[in-house]
Amino acid sequence: MPEHPFADRRRRLAESFERLKLPALAVSHLPNVRYLTGFTGSNALLLLTDRDALLFTDPRYELQAQDEVDCKVQIVRGPLWPALGKVLARRKIAGLGIESEYVSYEIWRMIAKEPLRLKGVSGLVEALRAVKSPEEIESIRASVILNSKAYERGLKVIKPGVRERDIAAELEYQMKRLGAEGPAFETIVAAGPRSALPHARPTGQPVNANQIVLVDMGANLDGYASDMTRVVHVGKPPRATERMYKAVLEAQLAAIDKVRGGVKAADVDQAARGTLKRWKLDHVFQHSTGHGLGLEIHEGPRIGKGAETVLQPGMVVTIEPGAYVEDYGGVRIEDTVVVTAAGCEVLTPTRKELLVL
Amino acid sequence: MPEHPFADRRRRLAESFERLKLPALAVSHLPNVRYLTGFTGSNALLLLTDRDALLFTDPRYELQAQDEVDCKVQIVRGPLWPALGKVLARRKIAGLGIESEYVSYEIWRMIAKEPLRLKGVSGLVEALRAVKSPEEIESIRASVILNSKAYERGLKVIKPGVRERDIAAELEYQMKRLGAEGPAFETIVAAGPRSALPHARPTGQPVNANQIVLVDMGANLDGYASDMTRVVHVGKPPRATERMYKAVLEAQLAAIDKVRGGVKAADVDQAARGTLKRWKLDHVFQHSTGHGLGLEIHEGPRIGKGAETVLQPGMVVTIEPGAYVEDYGGVRIEDTVVVTAAGCEVLTPTRKELLVL
Repeated sequence: MPEHPFADRRRRLAESFERLKLPALAVSHLPNVRYLTGFTGSNALLLLTDRDALLFTDPRYELQAQDEVDCKVQIVRGPLWPALGKVLARRKIAGLGIESEYVSYEIWRMIAKEPLRLKGVSGLVEALRAVKSPEEIESIRASVILNSKAYERGLKVIKPGVRERDIAAELEYQMKRLGAEGPAFETIVAAGPRSALPHARPTGQPVNANQIVLVDMGANLDGYASDMTRVVHVGKPPRATERMYKAVLEAQLAAIDKVRGGVKAADVDQAARGTLKRWKLDHVFQHSTGHGLGLEIHEGPRIGKGAETVLQPGMVVTIEPGAYVEDYGGVRIEDTVVVTAAGCEVLTPTRKELLVL
Repeated sequence: MPEHPFADRRRRLAESFERLKLPALAVSHLPNVRYLTGFTGSNALLLLTDRDALLFTDPRYELQAQDEVDCKVQIVRGPLWPALGKVLARRKIAGLGIESEYVSYEIWRMIAKEPLRLKGVSGLVEALRAVKSPEEIESIRASVILNSKAYERGLKVIKPGVRERDIAAELEYQMKRLGAEGPAFETIVAAGPRSALPHARPTGQPVNANQIVLVDMGANLDGYASDMTRVVHVGKPPRATERMYKAVLEAQLAAIDKVRGGVKAADVDQAARGTLKRWKLDHVFQHSTGHGLGLEIHEGPRIGKGAETVLQPGMVVTIEPGAYVEDYGGVRIEDTVVVTAAGCEVLTPTRKELLVL
């Protein structure tokens, strides 16, 4: 019988304990707890030593923890950190790693009162999470496929007079109908000049005839995120929009072409940026080319300028260059891809021609 | 011309600086930043002194900050905290309050390197936020009314064979169609025995004939949350369900009856709990009677056992007792109410008889 995946992940994490001289680690960031135990509740704390694992949660999650978790569970009434402190004291564990980014100053002050050697660590679990297992890749693939289906269904409502936020509502409704827990982030539907805002929130503004409509959407399915951007045009697109679209698509394909195990993330970004430069559009591409995704919508590795991470097979990243012209409009094309030894596999099935509605 | 509400809030907050011996306060919790400046972006840090206010955000939000914010704004490329540190150094400010619950250990370590006297504070802005202004009450009222409309529209899809999560999808779709930013929390739709789980997530399980269906939903509208729970019955309810419903409704009305400026929150909780005790159902009511809401779905004051807060006119709270019988089902009835000097105003317009579908 194969080892349970969560136990295997904890074992691999424990290998770093010796190097870091850590007798124990408290994991409080919930996606990390989920990754290491399977637990999906909203209140948990995980104590890891090189020998075992103990999950703390509250009575609301007693049955759920029994169902989901493959390690010991302690049900706590009230705050979880003091319960963890007691276990450390009882076991005479004198040193504890804590997740620097996710432990508040308040919690730190409380546990710093214990006779404990505290050590802030950063990105330890995240480094494991960046390289996905085959099962995780299948989970992301399922999320990506669901998201594309929801997009196809939602497309039907895009027409002049329909408001951005009603289109977004329809897309999110279709995700949920297809079995998603919900959107992985607030769906972006941006029409006309608003498409030039990379983080536009849908408004009550209706789509007009002869406009770009940019849709950036992702679903959560069984905890795993997807992420896709497509641009459609209502009415025949003007020459300038067609040109922008062609440039961004060429940049996106160039970046995808660059993705391979062993390549530096910055080089993938540069492939997109260099292509846009040839189209004289690099100055209107202000964000990074992509990011990892998995249990969270934004994870490592970042695919951007100066990103030194070397891509590894099993990493799953978005490739999403764009060009944004103020008061005119913007284009972004985004797929989710899996890094392989020989290149990458594009998970997103949705076609990439400029769709004219 | 009346003072801008944000400036007025900052002025009231600054009054506590002297008492706390704080020359300055860094506000990093985004709902607090929004409350004090109007800024709705996803990346911000606010520096307050007793004289002025300076908001730090990144270039994505330059235009938005100009639109929304009534204080000075500094646009920062990269992390915001070091920029705040430089301003403190330039102004020779030697002491800084930080929000203990919302500053990570990592950030704390970074700013602790500056020659600064740091002081963790907790609940300072939250205490102001607990008492709503008339304008805020109108914002919450609008959110509550929208939420009830979405509920009425969504009710139409509840029938045998429809899955919990499709009902939830419909309710959230209707919220967005009505203009909400989205749900204030993941909508709960729990049918049959699953209604006995106070934090059930909607599943692919269909509603059967002759079942309780519990719906707990809230919207975000212009940043303000609403929260309502109703229970309907598909088919004629059995005597035991009718009895539970009657008991919970009586408990909810008793608690609402108790709400008034000057009353202790624990006494409101006790009114609900005492009523359920007379029905011998207090042992199956495990959670608190209610909570404040506003820019966040859970704010102060908590309405629960041992809650010493004295209610003040302008506080807005939920009143939501319930009874949950394992393997049978649960009932919860929840309204949003505004505390007044004489009692309270129930904002939720939705009727409270047990609706039989």
